[in-house]
Amino acid sequence: MLSEFSLIDRYFARRARTNTRRAALGIGDDCALIAPAAGEMLAVSTDMLVEGRHFLPDVDPRALGHKALAVNLSDLAAMGAAPLGFTLAFALPKPREDWLEAFSGGLFELADRYGCELIGGDTTAGPLNLCITVFGSVRQHDALRRDAARPGDDVWVSGTPGDARAGLGVLRGEWPHVQIDRADAAHFRRALEYPEPRVALGLALAGIARAALDVSDGLAGDLRHILERSHVNAEIDVDALPLSAALARLPRALQLQCALAGGDDYELCFTAAQAQRGAVEAAAQQAGVRVTRIGTITSPDLAASPEAAVAARDGAHAQHKAQAWPDIAWRDASGAPLNLTLQGFDHFHAD
Amino acid sequence: MLSEFSLIDRYFARRARTNTRRAALGIGDDCALIAPAAGEMLAVSTDMLVEGRHFLPDVDPRALGHKALAVNLSDLAAMGAAPLGFTLAFALPKPREDWLEAFSGGLFELADRYGCELIGGDTTAGPLNLCITVFGSVRQHDALRRDAARPGDDVWVSGTPGDARAGLGVLRGEWPHVQIDRADAAHFRRALEYPEPRVALGLALAGIARAALDVSDGLAGDLRHILERSHVNAEIDVDALPLSAALARLPRALQLQCALAGGDDYELCFTAAQAQRGAVEAAAQQAGVRVTRIGTITSPDLAASPEAAVAARDGAHAQHKAQAWPDIAWRDASGAPLNLTLQGFDHFHAD
Repeated sequence: MLSEFSLIDRYFARRARTNTRRAALGIGDDCALIAPAAGEMLAVSTDMLVEGRHFLPDVDPRALGHKALAVNLSDLAAMGAAPLGFTLAFALPKPREDWLEAFSGGLFELADRYGCELIGGDTTAGPLNLCITVFGSVRQHDALRRDAARPGDDVWVSGTPGDARAGLGVLRGEWPHVQIDRADAAHFRRALEYPEPRVALGLALAGIARAALDVSDGLAGDLRHILERSHVNAEIDVDALPLSAALARLPRALQLQCALAGGDDYELCFTAAQAQRGAVEAAAQQAGVRVTRIGTITSPDLAASPEAAVAARDGAHAQHKAQAWPDIAWRDASGAPLNLTLQGFDHFHAD
Repeated sequence: MLSEFSLIDRYFARRARTNTRRAALGIGDDCALIAPAAGEMLAVSTDMLVEGRHFLPDVDPRALGHKALAVNLSDLAAMGAAPLGFTLAFALPKPREDWLEAFSGGLFELADRYGCELIGGDTTAGPLNLCITVFGSVRQHDALRRDAARPGDDVWVSGTPGDARAGLGVLRGEWPHVQIDRADAAHFRRALEYPEPRVALGLALAGIARAALDVSDGLAGDLRHILERSHVNAEIDVDALPLSAALARLPRALQLQCALAGGDDYELCFTAAQAQRGAVEAAAQQAGVRVTRIGTITSPDLAASPEAAVAARDGAHAQHKAQAWPDIAWRDASGAPLNLTLQGFDHFHAD
């Protein structure tokens, strides 16, 4: 068994030292020293992944290394920030060399691709736990915040949400009566295990989109975070949801469950003024990512009264409920209302 | 049982929102946005604490909240950096309100005292695990690095190392044949549970001291990190070690084990040019912390040959051993060598 020090050195520190050095001082001192570019802010996000909750005990360690960093890079993407570096703290029951080699391989493959440098970390014995804190650089006024959506904005989503949730269903054998073809099952599983953070799209949208977040807990639930923070409602055209060819081959009820309430997609959901439609399409093309308009931001009823809006912002929860805010109105392509409730999705939640 | 969201909100996010806002954007978005002061760097450190390894299962949660942040602030202190903020990610088997109230109480008491703002975090179900990443601000050229010690420098240590290790011994009942008075036991336990990060001392020493680190794994082992990174050796006068009155009442062998090989002290060990003795004393007085000169940085034998020094820096391990570098020569007050070996301390290691 490797000692803690030689373990860190073999799989992490040595690799970190040979990377391009964005940090003024990296691994090996009490702290790393970094700075955002002149005039920019440092965007910081942290995520903890626990066995049994965020990944299955028999997960491929290479996929785990990829995903642990991908979910953090996705938070940078959702702010429109450029990756700079990350710290990695993890607890391992027992260091196994083959596991560490595959895990660090998946991690650094992604880190190198985005020029994101390992600048510090901590390892300890304990039940498997991964904690990554990621750092990016963004101009403060270009940052894609959750509280910036305005009535009239288009609502957009990248990629084809729902595939990761279908991958979890396949792995768990949740739908024994549904025929799923092997190639489709492989597509779903890859979406679950190797999510691609939309870093290039987030950067291209900075200064064009208004509000944005990454879809980690399901499109319906995550969109509500934008609505809450921006004090608006939304109408979503369920027939406009972009589905992968594989997901479109599942029964319609499963399609909607996966696309709206499935987690782990790490696509971006964002809003932009209608006047920016051309700019959004151009940004998506530049980033090589499909984006789809799925609805519109609407005024909450209470916005008619400035006092009510202030009360809402200050946390008058009873009034929120009375005013049905934040609320998503689900429609089909003809504009007819659909009777979808968020509660109906909850037990499909992947997290 | 509280849901994840209301748990975070009640004990952490609400509190974070009412603090002074050093971050341009804090909890509630995909990322927090922060920046160091103009012309300064961001110092970053991360530590993961696991039950059974870093704290006992029955630890007082208020003490745990204090210590989880204290060990991170101590890393900033060791760089001479001023605390700005921190992220907190934790896994909890089952959220218990009384536990969370005490834990967050201990955490925020210390955070508020140092103006260190909670800017982001993550909570999840899982075996108890705490991961804090802390951010400070420091001028790059004032940062107290591990690789800056030079032959002739004095070696200093703050406070009275060893008390925390004695506290662990008392808690574990390791020394049943040693008479330890109740007040001394309480003193040791407090040193273990409520270490005080030497932030003010680190700030006062920035620009005065050369190399520094915080003593988390025992003075002997941690000093070797400075020696390794700076390519130097050291002579330490064991009789000069500053001992608390309580530690001085233990048998001499225990005193030395605790003071030299004990962990969890979070005192600063640093080097400074002899010409800076007055400035070091003044800095310590300003910070209200005792500092003691315990030895001298010496040239390694191999420094006589520049080629050998280069080989050492490039990792010629065999040569390191042949040249006994890095090495600590232990002396008593008369200058006579003491036969202390690092191996002899290892099984007392608190970590």
